[in-house]
Amino acid sequence: MQNISESVIVYKWLQRLQEVAHTLHRVMATAGQVIKCKAAIAWEPNKPMVIEEIEVAPPQAHEIRIKIVATGVCHTDLYHLFEGNNKEGFPAVLGHEGAGIVESVGPGVTKFKPGDKVIPLFISQCGQCKFCKSPKTNLCERSWSNERYDVMSDIDSRFTCRGKKVLQFMGTSTFSEYTVLNEIAVAKIHDSAPLDKVCLLGCGIPTGYGAAVNTAKVEPGSTCAVFGLGAVGLAAVMGCKAAGAARIIAVDVNKDKFEKAKVFGATDFVNPKEHSKPISQVLAEMTNGGVDFSLECVGNVEVMRSALESCVKGWGVSVLVGWTDMHDFSARPIQLIAGRTWKGTLFGGFKSKDGVPKLVNEYLARKLKLDEFVTHTMTLDRVNDAVELMKHGKCIRTVLNVSRQ
Amino acid sequence: MQNISESVIVYKWLQRLQEVAHTLHRVMATAGQVIKCKAAIAWEPNKPMVIEEIEVAPPQAHEIRIKIVATGVCHTDLYHLFEGNNKEGFPAVLGHEGAGIVESVGPGVTKFKPGDKVIPLFISQCGQCKFCKSPKTNLCERSWSNERYDVMSDIDSRFTCRGKKVLQFMGTSTFSEYTVLNEIAVAKIHDSAPLDKVCLLGCGIPTGYGAAVNTAKVEPGSTCAVFGLGAVGLAAVMGCKAAGAARIIAVDVNKDKFEKAKVFGATDFVNPKEHSKPISQVLAEMTNGGVDFSLECVGNVEVMRSALESCVKGWGVSVLVGWTDMHDFSARPIQLIAGRTWKGTLFGGFKSKDGVPKLVNEYLARKLKLDEFVTHTMTLDRVNDAVELMKHGKCIRTVLNVSRQ
Repeated sequence: MQNISESVIVYKWLQRLQEVAHTLHRVMATAGQVIKCKAAIAWEPNKPMVIEEIEVAPPQAHEIRIKIVATGVCHTDLYHLFEGNNKEGFPAVLGHEGAGIVESVGPGVTKFKPGDKVIPLFISQCGQCKFCKSPKTNLCERSWSNERYDVMSDIDSRFTCRGKKVLQFMGTSTFSEYTVLNEIAVAKIHDSAPLDKVCLLGCGIPTGYGAAVNTAKVEPGSTCAVFGLGAVGLAAVMGCKAAGAARIIAVDVNKDKFEKAKVFGATDFVNPKEHSKPISQVLAEMTNGGVDFSLECVGNVEVMRSALESCVKGWGVSVLVGWTDMHDFSARPIQLIAGRTWKGTLFGGFKSKDGVPKLVNEYLARKLKLDEFVTHTMTLDRVNDAVELMKHGKCIRTVLNVSRQ
Repeated sequence: MQNISESVIVYKWLQRLQEVAHTLHRVMATAGQVIKCKAAIAWEPNKPMVIEEIEVAPPQAHEIRIKIVATGVCHTDLYHLFEGNNKEGFPAVLGHEGAGIVESVGPGVTKFKPGDKVIPLFISQCGQCKFCKSPKTNLCERSWSNERYDVMSDIDSRFTCRGKKVLQFMGTSTFSEYTVLNEIAVAKIHDSAPLDKVCLLGCGIPTGYGAAVNTAKVEPGSTCAVFGLGAVGLAAVMGCKAAGAARIIAVDVNKDKFEKAKVFGATDFVNPKEHSKPISQVLAEMTNGGVDFSLECVGNVEVMRSALESCVKGWGVSVLVGWTDMHDFSARPIQLIAGRTWKGTLFGGFKSKDGVPKLVNEYLARKLKLDEFVTHTMTLDRVNDAVELMKHGKCIRTVLNVSRQ
């Protein structure tokens, strides 16, 4: 019996080794060469993306070429395509919430090797700049966005299509079978991480979760309000719960989202459509003066104002989590003078290379939910369908399977 | 020799005792009676105040009647009279930066007695409410302003003039020889405090000083910018220095104020009139990206925006210190999303009854400057002249001598 079971183990081990060798061969066969592959290209604003064959150049010094296995579709992709101020960042490959496998590395890359599972990062962590050296922030001077918050595409890229240069949106471009990033913008993650789930740790989930635990610093026993119950808002609810909030009020004009919010820990549900009073007044009445922490996860300047005004005076903290660059946000000075604090968060305050692998491990240890965010799964070809679902609030997260692992 | 010097000591002691007895007699002679005295009355908005004889009723339960010895003239007085939205809080006795001596106390008052030196407080400290019990705030549920930030007069008062009720501005009304406050809004201070100096601890100096040390929590070695060099701004400069800031950039359109700012610790001076670029860009160039802390001490929403934008991304903190209720303040969301924090302060975050006596002691120990703020001294009769000086930026602080001690 023992011999037979040993044989089985050895056989399975050999089988696994063969798979790994096969994968390595596949990925290494392309090293140093231009890869032709499929990508969704946003040729111009306000038009659907087009699946095209593109050329992806080999990684240069300190760069990594990654085979994208799966990617989430995040509202920021949609925003760039349809809503934002920047109409110049085209043509581009969108997508910034992906996970994949290292295909090859450029000269000087020592901490990654072909076959490593990785998550591309739209905020880098060079480890050397004044921001990276400070514990107060997760910004990095070498991020694609450092001086160009309003230009959401890299000025450089490794993509061409039909002889034209194609830009890299947010430095990442995960709506492509292959992409190239600087090594300071790639997180190496645990080998056993399922890429079609942990891809969500590339943007939305850390953003909402970290907004609660890192930026707002939600306290045990506190009362919180989360405005907007998309993936980022639900992740914020999850963050409030993880931080020990006693009461988490979920606010959304779409009451269908309340059931899902309950899964992540929401205790109270408010639909502004069902109230004639300002929502800040409704929340003040529910909480004897206002919430301790509020998180705006919509990206709407009117909601930002409501979220601030919903905070209790004296110590209420409101955090801008949702993204918009279209309008100013505003309030009366007394709102702050009376002791409220207004903050904002980018990627939930997580230092990216340090934080993402830890979040992957928390997911693997079942301390963080990810599966519950995925409502739809499709192939890359259907990226425009995924965008439509998001536009009409019909999904939480759609994950696109980009390449076979 | 020894006998002679002992006699001198005894004689001086007796002389002092006589003075005290005389003062006590004078103040106690009026206890329980309506006092007729002089006060400056603001009968209506946009008109000079008028010195009138008013009647001040005796203190009711838990109230204290105070003989005001000296009072500063603060911009908030001016604001109420000429600029604010509230045109209903009239007629009123303005003034909220005073110091005086307890004349008599109402039933139930046990911690004050006639003759005590005191400072009236526009934010009370009842010690019992949820705000007083929290270390995070200096608000008090029982403050005059609790539900009425935009109505800067008490709904009740102990004043009448020519048969009409006259309101108490900010609950204090220090432009009167006598005023009445609830005991939760009175700080007992050291017997040796000079009232014509420590009166400034009733508003402006704690506001600016505390904005830096309590609200912004300025850190040693940091770079700060203070916008507006009135008394509050200069006190903010003093607070930045006390907190150990390495560089304090004083910003004002009136370059005559820079010399004074130097006295309080400013190291750099910027006059926006001398620059064509936005001031935030000027400061960013001076500081490699922006200041760590900025304090808006003007009460102008455009300056509030500049002060925020002058902060370094990642960790910059901007504090609203100046008062206005006329307009919204605003900014682009990315300003906060990139890691800046926007806060505000009321009375510099000092819990009033606890904080003011400590500040008085710091002044007596020469750890806090006050004398340097006083540029003009007048009698109460000239209150309108003091207002004119302030309106035209010709003073830092004018102290009005209200009654003889």
